[in-house]
Amino acid sequence: MGVQENVQKPLDRLSEALGADMAAVNALIRDRMTSEHAPRIPEVTAHLIEAGGKRLRPMLTLAAARIMGYEGPYHIHLAATVEFIHTATLLHDDVVDESRQRRGRPTANLLWDNKSSVLVGDYLFARSFQLMVEPGNLRTLEILSNAAATIAEGEVLQLTAAQDLRTDEAVYLKVVRGKTAALFSAATEVGGVIAHADPEQVQALFDYGDALGISFQIVDDLLDYGGATETIGKNVGDDFRERKLTLPVIKAVARATPEERAFWSRVIESGDQREGDLERALSILSRHGAMQAARADALGWSAKAKAALTGLPPHPIRDMLSDMADFMVSRVA
Amino acid sequence: MGVQENVQKPLDRLSEALGADMAAVNALIRDRMTSEHAPRIPEVTAHLIEAGGKRLRPMLTLAAARIMGYEGPYHIHLAATVEFIHTATLLHDDVVDESRQRRGRPTANLLWDNKSSVLVGDYLFARSFQLMVEPGNLRTLEILSNAAATIAEGEVLQLTAAQDLRTDEAVYLKVVRGKTAALFSAATEVGGVIAHADPEQVQALFDYGDALGISFQIVDDLLDYGGATETIGKNVGDDFRERKLTLPVIKAVARATPEERAFWSRVIESGDQREGDLERALSILSRHGAMQAARADALGWSAKAKAALTGLPPHPIRDMLSDMADFMVSRVA
Repeated sequence: MGVQENVQKPLDRLSEALGADMAAVNALIRDRMTSEHAPRIPEVTAHLIEAGGKRLRPMLTLAAARIMGYEGPYHIHLAATVEFIHTATLLHDDVVDESRQRRGRPTANLLWDNKSSVLVGDYLFARSFQLMVEPGNLRTLEILSNAAATIAEGEVLQLTAAQDLRTDEAVYLKVVRGKTAALFSAATEVGGVIAHADPEQVQALFDYGDALGISFQIVDDLLDYGGATETIGKNVGDDFRERKLTLPVIKAVARATPEERAFWSRVIESGDQREGDLERALSILSRHGAMQAARADALGWSAKAKAALTGLPPHPIRDMLSDMADFMVSRVA
Repeated sequence: MGVQENVQKPLDRLSEALGADMAAVNALIRDRMTSEHAPRIPEVTAHLIEAGGKRLRPMLTLAAARIMGYEGPYHIHLAATVEFIHTATLLHDDVVDESRQRRGRPTANLLWDNKSSVLVGDYLFARSFQLMVEPGNLRTLEILSNAAATIAEGEVLQLTAAQDLRTDEAVYLKVVRGKTAALFSAATEVGGVIAHADPEQVQALFDYGDALGISFQIVDDLLDYGGATETIGKNVGDDFRERKLTLPVIKAVARATPEERAFWSRVIESGDQREGDLERALSILSRHGAMQAARADALGWSAKAKAALTGLPPHPIRDMLSDMADFMVSRVA
């Protein structure tokens, strides 16, 4: 998810506004990623957690709680929970995808082994559940445990759907809501719940996180093919080489000539990729306007995210969340 | 953990005494192992869950709740939670150990792939957390989330400790308390907590589960080398071939001559195993009385388990738990 590195300016302002809270979250994360008995655990975890992720997801929890006027201590635990779930997911994703790089560094599965990544991921999942129990709020427990199930379900669905040309935009949305948006929406929702926001406000927070997460993932898909109009950010073609059906490709498959369909079937379903195939894929995507169409979808979700915020009380942090939704898609403008 | 298949008679009686409860647990498990979106999930889960495990762990929760006179519905949820955690752990263990057989059938990682086992395991972990939230009891949430962390920690510790000849009995006990006993003791403890047992009784239930789990694991270690005095049960030598330092070997290493130590270092630490090495290992174990000494430990833990039960009110199911502690070690008598 290389987009994260690109969400800079509004996230930096948010990071500043939530500085004391984020310091508390980071301290709690460092405290809880230790292990009394197994030194391998903090080694692996530190490698990933201290590699400079932007902490976007925990910041969403803190932001939601602050907008709703929360004054208690437990948004910190919930934010740390969200980051632990995210980190556990990354460890397991890198095993599943056989990834070799994450945040510009070798992955844990490469530096140690798959075993360590699987088991340390399990440890962080368990730690996240310990953390989420501490506030003693059953509703936030439901939301976060549901999100964890939805994430895993989305990942499993992706296993079978990502290399199947029958995967349409409805299935894509299910996968994305699972693997990406579920944690964004849970992050914002629990921030509202812990602050005793009323049900409409909690719904608005959920909707913001959901739409932001979907827009985030579509932008990630676009950047993998070089963005809509210019080449920026991540290495072009990683998803293509990993044979992942992302939104631009799904749109191009829906509009494919028989010859193009045979091409997609060969490179994605059969994984038989040859010299020049990425260029051909880019040319087909361009011919059908698939990148522009996906970009329009990302803008639509970003607009939905901003619209949801209007259901919340005015607050400087609310405005930063709105700017973040704009910034998210500005990289593929 | 091939011992499970051998714990028959008292477990069968317990199964009969808890018949209606176990039917409810099985129905709840079947209900919750489904997935609306990802059909791969119930396929993988059913393969493992319906392969005829004895459901020892959930039965411990039901038994504890019944002994303490519980009349509510939530011991069912807690028992199903325990079985889901166990199943998730098995899926991940088989990936980590590169196992090919489990309960006499090919493992999920062999039938599908490691990816499916990792992600479906994650799904079951998440499902277990959803289930444990439902009773709305924060103390049982603490116990079960702590157990999940202890299990993962034990597994990670085993990664580094199992092939290191410096691993002594204290480290072995930490690993076993993690990977095996933590779920036994959590299973019995939550049964008591949900029944509002007093703190001493809850402690007695914890102590029973803890000691039973340790005895269970030592017996498993012994059976892997053919039992203390006769050859029964599982394939002899699996742990040896997987280069796992189990209790008999740890005892033999502690008493090893320099030549024997070089042997253990070659076969366990370096993994350089040759024709006749298993026979040589068995002969060294026998020379030092390592099997008999481990058996004495198993008997000691079984006695501790039974002693803990005396802190509980008289109940036919309490007597069955006592018989089970006896039966557990009778296979290596």
